[in-house]
Amino acid sequence: MHGEMKKVTNADDLRGKPLDAADTPALLLDVDAAEANLQTMAEYFNGRPCKLRPHFKSHKCTTLARRQVALGAVGITCAKLGEAEVLAAAGINDILIANQVVGAVKMPRLVEVARRSTLRVAVDSQANVRELSQAASAAGVEVGLLIEVDVGMRRCGVPPGEPALELARFIKTCPGVRFDGIQAYEGHLVCRPDPDERATLTRRDMQLAVDTRRLIERAGIEVPILSGGGTGTYDITGPMDGIDELQSGSYALMDCSYVRIRLEFRNAMNVLATVISKPDPKRVVLDVGLKGLSCEFGPPTLVDRPGDEIPFLASEEHVGVNLCGDHPAEIGQKLRLIPSHGCTTCNLYRQYVVHRNAVIEDVWPIEGAGAMT
Amino acid sequence: MHGEMKKVTNADDLRGKPLDAADTPALLLDVDAAEANLQTMAEYFNGRPCKLRPHFKSHKCTTLARRQVALGAVGITCAKLGEAEVLAAAGINDILIANQVVGAVKMPRLVEVARRSTLRVAVDSQANVRELSQAASAAGVEVGLLIEVDVGMRRCGVPPGEPALELARFIKTCPGVRFDGIQAYEGHLVCRPDPDERATLTRRDMQLAVDTRRLIERAGIEVPILSGGGTGTYDITGPMDGIDELQSGSYALMDCSYVRIRLEFRNAMNVLATVISKPDPKRVVLDVGLKGLSCEFGPPTLVDRPGDEIPFLASEEHVGVNLCGDHPAEIGQKLRLIPSHGCTTCNLYRQYVVHRNAVIEDVWPIEGAGAMT
Repeated sequence: MHGEMKKVTNADDLRGKPLDAADTPALLLDVDAAEANLQTMAEYFNGRPCKLRPHFKSHKCTTLARRQVALGAVGITCAKLGEAEVLAAAGINDILIANQVVGAVKMPRLVEVARRSTLRVAVDSQANVRELSQAASAAGVEVGLLIEVDVGMRRCGVPPGEPALELARFIKTCPGVRFDGIQAYEGHLVCRPDPDERATLTRRDMQLAVDTRRLIERAGIEVPILSGGGTGTYDITGPMDGIDELQSGSYALMDCSYVRIRLEFRNAMNVLATVISKPDPKRVVLDVGLKGLSCEFGPPTLVDRPGDEIPFLASEEHVGVNLCGDHPAEIGQKLRLIPSHGCTTCNLYRQYVVHRNAVIEDVWPIEGAGAMT
Repeated sequence: MHGEMKKVTNADDLRGKPLDAADTPALLLDVDAAEANLQTMAEYFNGRPCKLRPHFKSHKCTTLARRQVALGAVGITCAKLGEAEVLAAAGINDILIANQVVGAVKMPRLVEVARRSTLRVAVDSQANVRELSQAASAAGVEVGLLIEVDVGMRRCGVPPGEPALELARFIKTCPGVRFDGIQAYEGHLVCRPDPDERATLTRRDMQLAVDTRRLIERAGIEVPILSGGGTGTYDITGPMDGIDELQSGSYALMDCSYVRIRLEFRNAMNVLATVISKPDPKRVVLDVGLKGLSCEFGPPTLVDRPGDEIPFLASEEHVGVNLCGDHPAEIGQKLRLIPSHGCTTCNLYRQYVVHRNAVIEDVWPIEGAGAMT
């Protein structure tokens, strides 16, 4: 729940020590790599018409969010109200919730965030706009709304074109809410491995959002923001004429899925695990499984152990490693893994063990991981 | 980390209210169904030579663990040291950690639990036995050891037969540790859908553990405990001659995978979610995804909505429902889902919203979900 306390343990005990001092499983953050990633993305957007509003869902850590803003991000994108509360409490004063916030239970929380920060929310129905309008106007706050347009992901969103214009006109009649533009996420394309195909399809589909923008503008309604994009498409969607904000998140820490297609960013998030069993000379078992590594993008990979392989991830507390014989692996030894999906893996932990060149520097709370609702 | 504070929110606000009062996503616990499940399993083991030691990993909630002990369980099984700490703090005084506990960082924590409770741990290597022996004897405590025997799951464990006898002999030479027997888990069989096949294969494979027991006994070493079994096999493994303890866990709350093969237990764990989008008349989107539902056993199912279907689970914060048209589904409406895997889903939450006939009765902390290590 959003009020949950996060207790960060061990920071003083761990500073200055090697990684082996961390209890396992631990979520490691390589701060050199993370800083390089933040810098690379900030430089890309420096001086461009399109601005960066990094997504909080990928690292869920306010220490990183504040650094992203310090490097020039116009604000932070997040996935849900609980994350927005965490961000507002951390002093982030310009927040986009890139999903629909629905339900009477959430409205008092929403208006509280809107009192503290500039707040925008995605919408795709008159019913939701009406609910937000009533809550905001009753509380005397204003909430910015971005109409979510479905450009092919088939999740939420109104179709491009007239349905979006119709909803924009409706928003303009509602008190307490401000029509701030459009959101479109090409989530069906961000992980396409072939870069040319990814670029061609992204330009085709995001053009639907740009065309919708033009349609609304031709109807005499200003469209301040068109927001979209991800780590796989930031340099495709970002430079498109008519795109104002980019929502990339995974670039900060990267996972083994994105590392394969985005070579300009370095993997900065690892899971540290201990060998707890060596059932035969060619196989060891580590003390982390589905409760410390997400599996929807497949098993994790290993750091600096070419030839060793994790064929699958199916146990709650274990992964098995098939050894090629080139690297030592004894009971008690600690190995580093690269999660296949960083966004859902960081959700399983409550802190990053932050290191530079494998010397522990700090422990950072993952405040967003406790924000369920 | 194991010291994390759990703040239970909203309990006073929610008591006596309908389920719709809960913010979403919420993890619901149907206490009538859970009590019936606990009773059914307790009655099965009542008066049998084999005793029940329910697994904590499936519900991670000390309120349920205490009820299981009150109904006759000899103690609680858990998956890791952090869970054992939570159990000991809750007054459970007989704990089995059914996995290997490895590493210098964990030893001071382990001996602390051993001071407070009767503690047993699974082992499968001399290296680990030596580490446990040194830590326990230095601290002046005794830790019971169960040799894990691999009966076909191919995860951890020594092979049946001589290797187990050899490790038992080694344990007998080590101070601070006590040879308490054998653990074998037929995890490769517990979910086999065909009951006859499940029974035949389970008896075949668990006999390897029983035979290993006899081998060790013939060598003059007493084997106080042979522990194994799961919810899918409790009534197959449990009655076998030579089995002393059963580790079932999922029976308490059940998920949509186990509900299909174990009809004597009722589903008691649901996720409550809100319809946040209705992109077309035949499809709605709910406000829960991979960060509130695990996916390794497939998508969740819906409660009381025959014909409606969740075809896949691939988004972090959304699931789409294909509507058959027989049930209302409007924006703001709340629906109940049955997770496909309860053990990993409850790990994502910090509390159960406990209800009886859909009236909220209490909120119970899920203390084990914060126990990462």
